[in-house]
Amino acid sequence: MEKIEHIGIAVKDLETSNKLFEKLLGVPHYKIEEVASEGVKTSFFKSGPNKIELLEATKPDSPIAKYLEKKGEGIHHIAFAVEDIASEIDRLKNEGFTVLNETPKKGADNKLVAFLHPKGTNGVLVELCQEIKEG
Amino acid sequence: MEKIEHIGIAVKDLETSNKLFEKLLGVPHYKIEEVASEGVKTSFFKSGPNKIELLEATKPDSPIAKYLEKKGEGIHHIAFAVEDIASEIDRLKNEGFTVLNETPKKGADNKLVAFLHPKGTNGVLVELCQEIKEG
Repeated sequence: MEKIEHIGIAVKDLETSNKLFEKLLGVPHYKIEEVASEGVKTSFFKSGPNKIELLEATKPDSPIAKYLEKKGEGIHHIAFAVEDIASEIDRLKNEGFTVLNETPKKGADNKLVAFLHPKGTNGVLVELCQEIKEG
Repeated sequence: MEKIEHIGIAVKDLETSNKLFEKLLGVPHYKIEEVASEGVKTSFFKSGPNKIELLEATKPDSPIAKYLEKKGEGIHHIAFAVEDIASEIDRLKNEGFTVLNETPKKGADNKLVAFLHPKGTNGVLVELCQEIKEG
């Protein structure tokens, strides 16, 4: 775990929240990316070495739509940057954590990602993410 | 806003969660600090340039006790490092945010802190924190 890569925040309306977080952070979002497989549209802000990722549902049955329905807007997950996601998944499984994606999947922002079940992490949805390197 | 200074996580039992987060992050906590005025005992972990702060209630009427009762364990707040908390409070008030502590208060980890009302930030409790400099 090298650092907090980003914090994911579930929002109802990405356009409204982009304006709000631009005021909060003092910088505009630098990209918008849709991850169709997850039914989510994301926008990213830089905060020094970290990022804030806003998440809007694009389908009523997507994980973010369900989260918003159940819990409302707010912090959805913490993502930690890892150098080697496969070995980190092995390490965490050996430590007793429940890894929801034993085979990492393609996430937003050119990342391989895997989530840990929040029941094993004090209610915190933890994402591991590894930059996908070219070539 | 320079970076994410830390993420605050509300937990029921600090001792149990310290062991859990040591396994998760691969490093032990580096300090425990009680903030009696807030009815909270905290522990801190480093994650590169960021920190994870675990929060256990020490009084049944403390903000963390109330949070745990209402929402259960999980991510409680995001804290951003700021260079000059007074000017950042002014900036955010001018942008329309509701600052809960117009006069910053002493928090854990040698910081002056102020919170923004989560109703104005998509349900996210945002903390500003400025290092208290010696002399």
